[in-house]
Amino acid sequence: MSQTNVSESHLSEFASATAVERQSETSFTAELREDWSVAGAVNGGYLLSVAAQALRANSPNAIDPLVLSTHYLGPSQGGRADITTRLIREGRSSATLAVDLAQNGAPKITALATMGNLADLPDDVATTAAPPDVPDPDQCITIAEAPIDFVESAPIVHRYDMRLDPGTAGFASGQPSGRGLLQGWIRLADDAEPDPLSLLAFLDAFPPVMFDLGRFNWAPTMELTAHVRAIPAPGWIKVRLQTRNIAGGMFEEDCDLWDSEGRLVAQSRQLARQPRD
Amino acid sequence: MSQTNVSESHLSEFASATAVERQSETSFTAELREDWSVAGAVNGGYLLSVAAQALRANSPNAIDPLVLSTHYLGPSQGGRADITTRLIREGRSSATLAVDLAQNGAPKITALATMGNLADLPDDVATTAAPPDVPDPDQCITIAEAPIDFVESAPIVHRYDMRLDPGTAGFASGQPSGRGLLQGWIRLADDAEPDPLSLLAFLDAFPPVMFDLGRFNWAPTMELTAHVRAIPAPGWIKVRLQTRNIAGGMFEEDCDLWDSEGRLVAQSRQLARQPRD
Repeated sequence: MSQTNVSESHLSEFASATAVERQSETSFTAELREDWSVAGAVNGGYLLSVAAQALRANSPNAIDPLVLSTHYLGPSQGGRADITTRLIREGRSSATLAVDLAQNGAPKITALATMGNLADLPDDVATTAAPPDVPDPDQCITIAEAPIDFVESAPIVHRYDMRLDPGTAGFASGQPSGRGLLQGWIRLADDAEPDPLSLLAFLDAFPPVMFDLGRFNWAPTMELTAHVRAIPAPGWIKVRLQTRNIAGGMFEEDCDLWDSEGRLVAQSRQLARQPRD
Repeated sequence: MSQTNVSESHLSEFASATAVERQSETSFTAELREDWSVAGAVNGGYLLSVAAQALRANSPNAIDPLVLSTHYLGPSQGGRADITTRLIREGRSSATLAVDLAQNGAPKITALATMGNLADLPDDVATTAAPPDVPDPDQCITIAEAPIDFVESAPIVHRYDMRLDPGTAGFASGQPSGRGLLQGWIRLADDAEPDPLSLLAFLDAFPPVMFDLGRFNWAPTMELTAHVRAIPAPGWIKVRLQTRNIAGGMFEEDCDLWDSEGRLVAQSRQLARQPRD
């Protein structure tokens, strides 16, 4: 049993909250933090970061989750989590692993990751997508201070500094646009700079995109696949959430994250059950 | 050892080519068909359908892959494949399973699926996405007859009737648009109607979207997550492929499939390595 991270006193709040402790070659424990929860369950994006800490600890030659596909099996709570990883294939500079997280013997997430090293990738950028037009953070609405019920049931909003584009914030005043679009900015509340693992958390940190369709109840994620494409530059991360296919009791939610240098550094798509309302 | 499918003589070409044979409670074999390959490897979309046959056989209460996340570990060849499934969580009308496919002991794909029953889903449709504007199939270019090198190295093009929108077919005459967009139509060559498992194959059947960027070499998929959202109506399936983020030696490719009634029945996003050229 050994610490896989340095003493918590030197860590950012995020690194400390996602730290894992090695129990064997392939198993770890984590202490899930109640204050990273929303609607009574630990946030799914935060769980991705915890899982990625375990993946990274067991993949020393390929430390970054290039693509992480996670199926959610039930809501997680604050407290101890047991994490196991399994190496499926190891290449020269990539590795594919499975990771499972359980609490009290009940499986909570099961995931597959292809790991690599973002710092070693070629520096070509031929991205055709353009960053969305979002007013500067000081022109946006601070979500933690917004007069919406969501905030009361979401302690996680205080772990981030999240700003919502007023142009997509109609839901907060009872006037959702119906477009299925939310935009804004995010960074960690303690101003720690973004890194590949916090990008995973950012992908599922914003209020659900269904808010913009006037659907405010809990929408459990079934699956979320995250691509982490580059080490983010310091500063604010620009967020764009969109849903296009709402049908059959489910919806998909796409999230794009852009860094302060205008690079599309992470993308995700999730499939979730529609809120019951 | 028992057949999990009825006699092949009653099956469509697709059902026959994707059939699996049970070897134990959780293991299966399949005979991968050389004629579903491209650039010397069995097509990745076809492999999804084979894997889904095994998943379906081991998930009698939830037969449709609502979301299937697949990591590709190496190219597959025609011939025997060994498939194992593992139940992770079973709910009333859903189940999450793992599935692994190997050849000669070498792992080829590892995947996670959340299964459900499309026929039992509520019939709400509030999809905001509109189907792309594509000329009728008889106004489009039949890919199997196109004067492009791709066809010679891709026997799989004869397993489908694939039609390419002339507006996105510039690559075939040496004039790729640079937008990263391909559109068209697909159905099975023997006119078998689409079903949830053939949708999986359709998601990765078209020429790679990188063709529209003038990049014609092999682009191996790292991961592909597929959502199957509805049982498709009979007839042609409309296809839209797009890439937006080409950087760091990788690119993402999104595929949308629309059925003949205008419903967005399946979506996928894959992360692939850029062609080496």
